Amino acid sequence: MLFEIDGPTAVIRFNRPDKLNACTREMGAALIELIDRAESQQAVRCIVITGNGRAFCAGADLSASKGTFAAAADTQAEPFRDFGGIITLRLYDCVKPVIVAFNGPAAGMGVTLALAADIRIASDTAKFVLPFVRRGIVPESASSWFLPRIVGLPRAMEWMLRGATVDASEALAAGLVSAVHPESALIPAAFALAEEIATHTAPVSVALTRRLLWRMAGAPDPHAAHAIESRLLHERMRSSDIREGAKSFLDKRLPEFPDRLDDGLPALDW
Amino acid sequence: MLFEIDGPTAVIRFNRPDKLNACTREMGAALIELIDRAESQQAVRCIVITGNGRAFCAGADLSASKGTFAAAADTQAEPFRDFGGIITLRLYDCVKPVIVAFNGPAAGMGVTLALAADIRIASDTAKFVLPFVRRGIVPESASSWFLPRIVGLPRAMEWMLRGATVDASEALAAGLVSAVHPESALIPAAFALAEEIATHTAPVSVALTRRLLWRMAGAPDPHAAHAIESRLLHERMRSSDIREGAKSFLDKRLPEFPDRLDDGLPALDW
Amino acid sequence: MLFEIDGPTAVIRFNRPDKLNACTREMGAALIELIDRAESQQAVRCIVITGNGRAFCAGADLSASKGTFAAAADTQAEPFRDFGGIITLRLYDCVKPVIVAFNGPAAGMGVTLALAADIRIASDTAKFVLPFVRRGIVPESASSWFLPRIVGLPRAMEWMLRGATVDASEALAAGLVSAVHPESALIPAAFALAEEIATHTAPVSVALTRRLLWRMAGAPDPHAAHAIESRLLHERMRSSDIREGAKSFLDKRLPEFPDRLDDGLPALDW
Repeated sequence: MLFEIDGPTAVIRFNRPDKLNACTREMGAALIELIDRAESQQAVRCIVITGNGRAFCAGADLSASKGTFAAAADTQAEPFRDFGGIITLRLYDCVKPVIVAFNGPAAGMGVTLALAADIRIASDTAKFVLPFVRRGIVPESASSWFLPRIVGLPRAMEWMLRGATVDASEALAAGLVSAVHPESALIPAAFALAEEIATHTAPVSVALTRRLLWRMAGAPDPHAAHAIESRLLHERMRSSDIREGAKSFLDKRLPEFPDRLDDGLPALDW
Repeated sequence: MLFEIDGPTAVIRFNRPDKLNACTREMGAALIELIDRAESQQAVRCIVITGNGRAFCAGADLSASKGTFAAAADTQAEPFRDFGGIITLRLYDCVKPVIVAFNGPAAGMGVTLALAADIRIASDTAKFVLPFVRRGIVPESASSWFLPRIVGLPRAMEWMLRGATVDASEALAAGLVSAVHPESALIPAAFALAEEIATHTAPVSVALTRRLLWRMAGAPDPHAAHAIESRLLHERMRSSDIREGAKSFLDKRLPEFPDRLDDGLPALDW
Repeated sequence: MLFEIDGPTAVIRFNRPDKLNACTREMGAALIELIDRAESQQAVRCIVITGNGRAFCAGADLSASKGTFAAAADTQAEPFRDFGGIITLRLYDCVKPVIVAFNGPAAGMGVTLALAADIRIASDTAKFVLPFVRRGIVPESASSWFLPRIVGLPRAMEWMLRGATVDASEALAAGLVSAVHPESALIPAAFALAEEIATHTAPVSVALTRRLLWRMAGAPDPHAAHAIESRLLHERMRSSDIREGAKSFLDKRLPEFPDRLDDGLPALDW
C-alpha cells in the first residue's frame, strides 16, 4: 500500500499492480492503519483511495496456496469476523470524508470495501464485478446493507443474484459512482473534490454530517434525526466555527474555521 | 405569511420578498399555525407551500442582530429543539397531502423544511443550496433522515459534504423535485395535482396512505407493514367509502366519498 | 393458475384471461401452493410469474357479488390478515429467486404482489395502476414497505396519493421494472435471466444472498449485516461449494456446485 499527503488530501493506493491489486489480509490491515494515520493528521481533510496500475482492486486474493478467506477461517479467534466488514465499518466510523477513485476494474471485495466511502468516482476503464454467488459464498464487507442504500434495492438484488459485471456507464446510471472521467482526469477530479471540501467547509461540521447521514440511513423515523440534530446544533451554536461561518458569509470571503477535530469534536456516543 | 383557500387547495406563501423570504422564528411559527388551519378545514384537500416574489425561501434569517439560531439557543427551555425539525415533524404528521412549489431559489432550511412534503415541484428558476458545513453547523430539520430517502444516500452525502448548490435540472434528475416547469406554469401545475387528488380520492384513504408510506420508510421489515395495513383494511372494508369506491368504479363515474377526516379517521396510534 | 417446469425455470401463470386475470382468493391460495411446489423441486432454480392472455393481473376481483375484500372481512378469523400481504411475505421468504414478467396491464394487487419479487421486467404493453386511494381503501400486500424501497419514497408517495397509472417507460425510469421488451421477447428474456442464474451460481449462495438483501433493507446499521455475513461466510468457507467456486474460476470453466437447498442450507433463524 502506498500513502502520500498532498495538501489537504491523503492518498492511499493499492500497490500490487502485477496481481491487479488483489487484496491480501496484510494489505487490508495496512489499509486500516493508513486510514488511522490520515485521520490523525490535522492537515488532512479528505482521504482518497485508489489503485496503482491498471486495476483498482481485483478482490480478495484467492490464488495464494492458502487463500485469504480460508486462511482467515483457520486462524481467526472465535467468533469469526469477515475482514472486509472490518474495513467498511472502519470507514463508516471515519471522521473525514473518503473518496474512492476507481482507476480501473474492481471485483468482489474491491467493489464492496468502497461502498462505505462517501463519494465514488470512476475512470471510464473501470468495471465492477460482484461474483459472490458464482464462487459459492455470499456478499461480504457488510455490502448487503451498503449496496441497496447506494444503488437501490432492485439493482442491488439483480446484480448480486446474477453475480453481475457492470461497466462504468451502468455504474454511473445506477449511482454506484457519481461521475466517470477519462483515465487521466480521474485523480485530478478526486483532488478537486477534496480541495473544494477543504476550502469551504468546517472539519467538525463535516465529521458530524457524514456520521449523521450514515447513522440516519437506518433510523426508524425522523424523530431520531431531530433529537440528535438538535443536540449537535445546540453544541455548534456556541462554537467559534458558527461565528466564523456567518461572518465569512456576510463578508463574502472564504472561511477559516478554528475548531479542530482533535479537541473540538462533540462526543460521538450516538 | 400569506394564506388563501382556492377550491380544495390551501396555499401558504412565504411573504418577505425583499429578504428572499428568509425565515424568522415568527414565520416558522406562523407556518405551523397555517398548516393547522388548512388541516382543520374540511373543504381543503391539499396544502401548497410556495414563496412570494422571486425566491422560495433563503433559509433561516442570519442577518438580524441576533440571528435565529443564536436567539433560539439563548431563549429555549431545555432541551433545545431545532425549529426546522419542529416544522418537518409537523408536516410528517399532517393528514393532508403537502405539495411544495419551489418558485425560485431555496437555501438551508428553505430546502430542508420541504423534504417532509409529499410532492415537490420547481420552477426552472429554482436552485437549491445546502450550506450547513460551510457555515460551521450541521444539517437540520431532520434532513439527515429525510434527504437520503428523497434523493438517495450517495447524492445526499455528496451534496451535504460539499455544501452544494444544485440547479433545477440536477434536482429533477436526483428526484428532489418530480417536475420542473416554466415559472408561469408552476402554480397551475401545483393546483392541477391538488385538483386531481381532490377529484378522485378519498380523504381518509389519502391521510392513511401518506402516513403509511412515511411510517414504513423506516420500518425494519414488511411484517410491520402487513400488520398495520391489515388493521386499516379491516376498518376500511366496513366503511361507506369502500362501497362508494367500488360502485363509482363499476359505474364509471367520479366518486363522492362520504367519510370525513374529522370523524371518520381511524386512530393514528401507529 | 398454470404451472410448468422448463429446465431450471418454474413458470406460474395467472390464467383467467377473460377477466384480465383478476385475482380471486382461490387464485391467491393457488399461487402460494405453486410457489411451495417450485421451491421444493430441486431442479427448479428460478420462479417466473406471468399472466396468460393480454393482462398480467387486474388486481383483486371486485366484480363478484361478494367481492374478495368484503368476503375476506366477513369470513376471516381474527385478527384479519390482508391476503395480498400473505402472498408477498411468502415471496419475501422464498429461497429461490422470483422473476415477475409483466406481460400486460397490472392493477392494484396485480402490481403490489410483484413488489416482493427479486427482478421485474415488462412488455411494452404493460401499465401499472395503483388505485387504492381512488377506491376508498389503503395500499396493501405490504406495499407501503416494499414500494418505496423499489422506486424510492418520492415516486412511491406521489403514485400512491394520486392513485396513479404508470406506463412501461415510466416504470422503467422509476426502477419498478429493470427492463422493457417487445411483447414477444418478454418470456425469452425472463428465461434468459433464469438460465444465467442457473448456469453460473450456487443455489445455497443465491438463497442466502436474496435473504440477506431483503433482511438488511430494513436493518438499522451495517453492524447487523457484518454479524450475519460473518456467520454465513464462516459456514460457507467450510462448504464444498466454495472449493468448486474457486476451482472452476481458476480452471476457467462453468461451476458444478454440489450443495443442495434441501440439506445444505444453513439455519435461516435470522
